[in-house]
Amino acid sequence: MAAKQLRMGMVGGGRDAFIGAVHRHAAALDGQIDFVAGALSSTPEKARASGQDLGLADDRNYGSWQAMLAGELARPAGERIDFVSIVTPNDVHYPVARAFAEAGINVVCDKPLVHTVEQADDLVATARQSGVVFAVTYNYTGYPMVKEARHWIEQGRIGAIRRVVVEYAQGWLSHPIDAEGHKQAAWRTDPARAGIAGALGDIGTHCENLASYVTGLEIRELSADLATFVPGRRLDDDVSVLLRFASGGANSAGEDPRGVLWVSQVAAGAKNRLTLRVYGTAGGLLWDQEDPDRLLFLDPGGDATIARAGDPGLCAAAERATHLFPGAPEGFLGAFANIDANAADTMRAKLAGREPTELELDFPGVADGARGVRFMERVVENAAGTAKWSPF
Amino acid sequence: MAAKQLRMGMVGGGRDAFIGAVHRHAAALDGQIDFVAGALSSTPEKARASGQDLGLADDRNYGSWQAMLAGELARPAGERIDFVSIVTPNDVHYPVARAFAEAGINVVCDKPLVHTVEQADDLVATARQSGVVFAVTYNYTGYPMVKEARHWIEQGRIGAIRRVVVEYAQGWLSHPIDAEGHKQAAWRTDPARAGIAGALGDIGTHCENLASYVTGLEIRELSADLATFVPGRRLDDDVSVLLRFASGGANSAGEDPRGVLWVSQVAAGAKNRLTLRVYGTAGGLLWDQEDPDRLLFLDPGGDATIARAGDPGLCAAAERATHLFPGAPEGFLGAFANIDANAADTMRAKLAGREPTELELDFPGVADGARGVRFMERVVENAAGTAKWSPF
Amino acid sequence: MAAKQLRMGMVGGGRDAFIGAVHRHAAALDGQIDFVAGALSSTPEKARASGQDLGLADDRNYGSWQAMLAGELARPAGERIDFVSIVTPNDVHYPVARAFAEAGINVVCDKPLVHTVEQADDLVATARQSGVVFAVTYNYTGYPMVKEARHWIEQGRIGAIRRVVVEYAQGWLSHPIDAEGHKQAAWRTDPARAGIAGALGDIGTHCENLASYVTGLEIRELSADLATFVPGRRLDDDVSVLLRFASGGANSAGEDPRGVLWVSQVAAGAKNRLTLRVYGTAGGLLWDQEDPDRLLFLDPGGDATIARAGDPGLCAAAERATHLFPGAPEGFLGAFANIDANAADTMRAKLAGREPTELELDFPGVADGARGVRFMERVVENAAGTAKWSPF
Amino acid sequence: MAAKQLRMGMVGGGRDAFIGAVHRHAAALDGQIDFVAGALSSTPEKARASGQDLGLADDRNYGSWQAMLAGELARPAGERIDFVSIVTPNDVHYPVARAFAEAGINVVCDKPLVHTVEQADDLVATARQSGVVFAVTYNYTGYPMVKEARHWIEQGRIGAIRRVVVEYAQGWLSHPIDAEGHKQAAWRTDPARAGIAGALGDIGTHCENLASYVTGLEIRELSADLATFVPGRRLDDDVSVLLRFASGGANSAGEDPRGVLWVSQVAAGAKNRLTLRVYGTAGGLLWDQEDPDRLLFLDPGGDATIARAGDPGLCAAAERATHLFPGAPEGFLGAFANIDANAADTMRAKLAGREPTELELDFPGVADGARGVRFMERVVENAAGTAKWSPF
Repeated sequence: MAAKQLRMGMVGGGRDAFIGAVHRHAAALDGQIDFVAGALSSTPEKARASGQDLGLADDRNYGSWQAMLAGELARPAGERIDFVSIVTPNDVHYPVARAFAEAGINVVCDKPLVHTVEQADDLVATARQSGVVFAVTYNYTGYPMVKEARHWIEQGRIGAIRRVVVEYAQGWLSHPIDAEGHKQAAWRTDPARAGIAGALGDIGTHCENLASYVTGLEIRELSADLATFVPGRRLDDDVSVLLRFASGGANSAGEDPRGVLWVSQVAAGAKNRLTLRVYGTAGGLLWDQEDPDRLLFLDPGGDATIARAGDPGLCAAAERATHLFPGAPEGFLGAFANIDANAADTMRAKLAGREPTELELDFPGVADGARGVRFMERVVENAAGTAKWSPF
Repeated sequence: MAAKQLRMGMVGGGRDAFIGAVHRHAAALDGQIDFVAGALSSTPEKARASGQDLGLADDRNYGSWQAMLAGELARPAGERIDFVSIVTPNDVHYPVARAFAEAGINVVCDKPLVHTVEQADDLVATARQSGVVFAVTYNYTGYPMVKEARHWIEQGRIGAIRRVVVEYAQGWLSHPIDAEGHKQAAWRTDPARAGIAGALGDIGTHCENLASYVTGLEIRELSADLATFVPGRRLDDDVSVLLRFASGGANSAGEDPRGVLWVSQVAAGAKNRLTLRVYGTAGGLLWDQEDPDRLLFLDPGGDATIARAGDPGLCAAAERATHLFPGAPEGFLGAFANIDANAADTMRAKLAGREPTELELDFPGVADGARGVRFMERVVENAAGTAKWSPF
Repeated sequence: MAAKQLRMGMVGGGRDAFIGAVHRHAAALDGQIDFVAGALSSTPEKARASGQDLGLADDRNYGSWQAMLAGELARPAGERIDFVSIVTPNDVHYPVARAFAEAGINVVCDKPLVHTVEQADDLVATARQSGVVFAVTYNYTGYPMVKEARHWIEQGRIGAIRRVVVEYAQGWLSHPIDAEGHKQAAWRTDPARAGIAGALGDIGTHCENLASYVTGLEIRELSADLATFVPGRRLDDDVSVLLRFASGGANSAGEDPRGVLWVSQVAAGAKNRLTLRVYGTAGGLLWDQEDPDRLLFLDPGGDATIARAGDPGLCAAAERATHLFPGAPEGFLGAFANIDANAADTMRAKLAGREPTELELDFPGVADGARGVRFMERVVENAAGTAKWSPF
Repeated sequence: MAAKQLRMGMVGGGRDAFIGAVHRHAAALDGQIDFVAGALSSTPEKARASGQDLGLADDRNYGSWQAMLAGELARPAGERIDFVSIVTPNDVHYPVARAFAEAGINVVCDKPLVHTVEQADDLVATARQSGVVFAVTYNYTGYPMVKEARHWIEQGRIGAIRRVVVEYAQGWLSHPIDAEGHKQAAWRTDPARAGIAGALGDIGTHCENLASYVTGLEIRELSADLATFVPGRRLDDDVSVLLRFASGGANSAGEDPRGVLWVSQVAAGAKNRLTLRVYGTAGGLLWDQEDPDRLLFLDPGGDATIARAGDPGLCAAAERATHLFPGAPEGFLGAFANIDANAADTMRAKLAGREPTELELDFPGVADGARGVRFMERVVENAAGTAKWSPF
């Protein structure tokens, strides 16, 4: 049986935007999400022109998100958008997400969620009160082998965790392209739109989310160093963080598991190298976003093994996230679509009046988004001070 | 401006089928192709049930391809499907492709094109007479770095070619799953449906196409060895071919460039390892489908280099085939969609009454499909004989 | 206890030579072989000058191999060289090896062993009659992970073999450096010194030996294509061979296991890429000389695994061939020294009047060398004819 | 012409020791160093038994290093050892190195050099006063591609440095083997013998040295976190350090270059993964000890490139450190021997009364060893405190 088609509205993502197109592609790939409404730019004319490019019906091609919210609520319940996808610069996330969530419309929002912990906590509360489904597109956790990594750790395959190393190296901001008219670079380095963090918010939050998702560990305290290497830039472009996680003493000597997080957008020549390594009492694991269909297990007592997407015997979450056949890379869009698909299935469960399954609930939610905002704040605070450790 | 949406009809690809879903995903990813009609199975009830699963309108959810052809032709010209996508087992390709092409409907057909050279030649002639656009989904040439490889050779970066090594290793037919109810395996090893070749037709033709596309060389003669390792199997599951290409004597000593082609579906443990290596008088190149966004250049006088999808300075065809950003793998579906997209743009050019550009025409056509059929025939003939070389 | 130091004499390997130095380094690395005598060049003055460079005592720094043989035999039995290492161009191997073997002096000889099957058979007979230890330095079988690969196959880890792919790609002869004064290139492409084969003899024989050693299979018939791409060159520089092995029908359908062997010295940009892949009914394995401490096992029912030199649980032969610690690459010289070390231990066993163990006997012998010569002859014969298959 | 043979004496390295054998192998590989004297254990009987194993003459097979120093000084100047190689546990380095250096005998000493900065400074002064050659075997800087990396940075190929990431992951101390009789593990985790640092001293100092050698940067301040995960262990087994280097403001915005250093001996399943990554204003470079013959250059404006040992065009230091041919891995011992060889050539220059060349002086000296000791002290101090940064 075909799943119920869901109707998506989009805020942001018009001409010159990047991530909106990714969201639309991912939704199309899923095949069960229709893009039916939009307020695609903060400039009404540009919003409408963008909607025409993309074939939106005139009466759902809105000039502002406020108009879209009003217009959709004016429709009969069965014809409204099922969810709004928010793909604007960061500063717009909060008012839009709050308004739609409050109105009972499910939300899929880009990361980092908002600018401040206060906003984040408010969104968590709003979503809880209204009962909406609220997803945050930390897309890298949509890869099947990331899900398998999480499964290995849950199953104890590497034992109690001692050491986490998570990195995200990009080089595209090595030169001051933000000051030279590059639109994507410009808003990401503008405190008014990006918030208090540059690389930290844009890609550091992916690291925090990936490490949390896979390891299940909670950060207990952190120590950070921020740098801004490109002249004239106003936000960090290179970040190092030492992490201590709460563990309950499982890993032999009762030490807190340790972590290193390094992200940079001035790692000249790097593309999109997000990697995670975790070592425990019984083995280690490695994952690399630029080779995402492989997951390496290091066995101290024997051979290393390479698990691959599509292999027999992977966990249910990884299997569900694999659509083609072994050796056919599904890539970035496949992972992105997996986040959407689980959020959409959770929305369908709600529409059908049933509890979503654990597999359906396997997507980053508003609480994950809020934790990422807290992470940004704590890192910025610590980096500005002289004390080594800040509690998380 | 948005491109004109094209309407796709599909023959085959119902419940239990595999490649139909890939075609639909690829069309959806493209975002400018609507799936509006289908005859999704050779069994009318199953065809209709499959169409309902996929949300086809009742009046375009046909019980047979003949009904679909008649039904679509009965519609006003502006409302018919723009092309038919043929994703059936091989034996059905010929009658369907011939009928739709003759009726003036564009065709996108799976590979290997047909069973015999006679059928293939007939399709070439039919397509020429009717003027339809006819694409054959040799999907691996849709990868951007395959296009870049072709560009390098056209530009002389590796000099005159001396040596080609092309391989495709799969392991999924290592056991007699074809005799144990695996539907995909069963038809591929059944001469009535697959034709004269097993692994040779299913994946060997991809190798021939990939090597031809990238190198531009023509096979002059070949020598082959076929094996069938799995008990009870009726078609080859492992193939070796020595190739001699026509070269015009460019590579120094006037020797024919040499090739080795090896494919196997009993390479136990292999997933989908299609690789191409080409060596010339000035350097070598390597490409691997399981790491498709990288292309290696071997420079005899210095460092090897790794070009990556999204790098600045790639050729126009590679750039056009890249949609996301460097380091965001687009994978198998991205490549597949690129084939569709160029074919679709060529159809749009025809609709608009203009000549398609060279970039739009960059997709495998009926002549490429026919050459693949000839390749199958020549290999099977040679392998059955005692003479070393057979002309191509 | 220290092993008995052995005394090595060397024929060839003087100034400008390459492989002689490798042999001396390998012997030094072993630590239990002393280089005490030499006839290091065919030109007496150059021989003596080379010996002085290397610190040979004057009375054992001979002007010719004949003088060395006579001089050493004139010494008391306990003071003679224990073995001669023959590192000359190929044409000199036969007379030297024959003379020393006949005189009862152990031989370590470079490959390819000799020019003709007749010479090879004669050496086999001579060695048998005199009872000398006779090693042929197919050095690549000295790597620990090559030994582990052989062990896996003996233990049935990949099941009955279906498919072998062995390759050796070099690019250093892409240009006519043999005609431009490059000494190593010149003799290797000169029929008078190299014999009937160029790349085939120099590196193709390594492939034959590696595949035979690891798989234990015997070639039943072969079909070959030779090319000479560089203008003016008189011997092959690129070789393809299709192989059929005798198997006894173990691999399910009774088919002969198939092989492809490709070697080239005009693979522009390639360094020294010798790789072996073997696929059986239960799995596959891959080894690569440029990453020699890893061995990949492909499990059709699960994860691939990477075994590494120094891992716990490797076979006794691999363990004996590993001297440092896991992750400390021992490289080409380590492998070379392992060949010498086992041959030396076999000589010591003979001196001690005991049977050498299986582990000590794990080095390529005169029969392996002779098989390599037969392989060269059969390939050259087949490539010159029109029949597809030649018996081996 | 042959280089002058040098005579080596060794302190430590008897039965059950590890690194002594590595030093002897490396010396043998060099071919121009004779091992003639030893005091191979702190237990006189074991020292002598070890020396007999290794074939030392009875009159130079000493029961203690004091006896060796006296015995060698009693010989005529031309017959003494040319240098002493100190391969004991760390606590013995200082008295031995001091005594031999003071007596005018050249020293090659293992790392970390000594226990305290005071001892280190004293050795630096002693070596200066006596004029001896004093090498410290930070062996990883002996790899040709490490030398090439240094050359690239000197030549400005990656521009002004912004970011350094250096790691060393081992897993062999994941379990308490130090408490279970593993001799190598036991002394490394015993404060009396290892000093104030465990993993930090054993492998962290390699990281500091590698980063300093390649980048030429000086650490300005650091912030560290030490952990001891294995129950009962008395020294650190996992270390993270944030680094700020002095730069002079070259990298655009005048920020200090940043570094992350992570080492662990409880990274379960890791072998000997020492890696260095450096990013500058114009590109990045990557090196990996487990694949040591490759060096990756990341070019932000184009293809990445892979330079390989033996490639044409490498710098003189890399060329001098390469002995075989491209694609023939020389490994760990090759790198180790390169350190010895340059130190030995510097000793020969001194003997010949000439200035050593820059290439000969390319080995880690006593000042590098002393800097490593300071690094250990500063890291331990910082990790014990609450202030974030400690000056270096």
